[in-house]
Amino acid sequence: MLRYPKDLLTLIAHLKKLPGVGKKTAERYAFHLLEWDGKDLHEFAEGLATLKERVQSCAECGCLMDGVRCIFCDQEKRDCSIMCIIASPRDAYAIEETGDFRGMYHVLGALLSPLDGKTPESLNLSQLENRIQALDIQEVILALDSTLEGDATSLFLKEQLAKSGIEVSRLALGLPLGSSLDFVDEGTLSQAFSGRQKF
Amino acid sequence: MLRYPKDLLTLIAHLKKLPGVGKKTAERYAFHLLEWDGKDLHEFAEGLATLKERVQSCAECGCLMDGVRCIFCDQEKRDCSIMCIIASPRDAYAIEETGDFRGMYHVLGALLSPLDGKTPESLNLSQLENRIQALDIQEVILALDSTLEGDATSLFLKEQLAKSGIEVSRLALGLPLGSSLDFVDEGTLSQAFSGRQKF
Repeated sequence: MLRYPKDLLTLIAHLKKLPGVGKKTAERYAFHLLEWDGKDLHEFAEGLATLKERVQSCAECGCLMDGVRCIFCDQEKRDCSIMCIIASPRDAYAIEETGDFRGMYHVLGALLSPLDGKTPESLNLSQLENRIQALDIQEVILALDSTLEGDATSLFLKEQLAKSGIEVSRLALGLPLGSSLDFVDEGTLSQAFSGRQKF
Repeated sequence: MLRYPKDLLTLIAHLKKLPGVGKKTAERYAFHLLEWDGKDLHEFAEGLATLKERVQSCAECGCLMDGVRCIFCDQEKRDCSIMCIIASPRDAYAIEETGDFRGMYHVLGALLSPLDGKTPESLNLSQLENRIQALDIQEVILALDSTLEGDATSLFLKEQLAKSGIEVSRLALGLPLGSSLDFVDEGTLSQAFSGRQKF
């Protein structure tokens, strides 16, 4: 079988590491990149090379910073009595968009998944207890995926936080907005029943 | 609405230019790239920045070169009497994989699509006639997409090549292998009938 040029193969290998990108998609991207003009390609490369230096995480909460100060840790503008625990810095933007939460964030960086090597040591927990005490947090909201890994992590955190006596809640499980009962899976329906809300 | 850090937005804008990548996918890629380790990120960036210099096209046929010589233009190993016209350098690899063609290639670089600004001037035609004469080509195979743009380009080339009196063929249209008649569209079925082959 005839192989693509060596440098193109290297690029394809890098592109294949992106989430959900297989061999065919990576090849498609690589051949598309060959058609980009040199300026765009250099700017893209520059953006990648300097990504880590330019987009840094807040040492406190783990959210992304645009500049030197973390907008999520601004104690004057935000409610310091409530903290939302999220898995990835990206989740903070999704939550901010709802406008329903004005408290502090804490990014775990991962979800528990022992088979993938994600043990409690992989989570950003070392500062969690200190932050809860320093900020005098009254309630912790666990805003993690409703998957096996997310649920395991929520349970683990619930146990960890039980000692401190803080109120711990997690996001409601139930019907997504605009859904039809016909198409909702059994597990979701069952959760929606057990978690039914006063109307 | 809260925006991502500026440099992340720039990266997302670049990723969005890849084929089939929308806003959500670009964001997913960007956040994934944030988790790559610095070495990988730098190698990826380096590969992109040097892509144009390292992966060059053959000045003759337009195929990609791995090194200084074009393996597709090797007149000693390949049949110089037949030429296959393709739209992209990538097509040559797909055709080579079949093992059914050992002739020369000629890459057009695009398909005719006036609405997208792809006029005959966008196609790499200037050298085509010279090459056909220089190599003493007897048959030209048009191996272009069976789409509106591909068909328009095939027709255009057929007319262009009519003057030279060379035999012009195009890839057979018909049922793809392993297909069931139930699922084949009318157009394909109609082409399969009109192009029926002796059995």
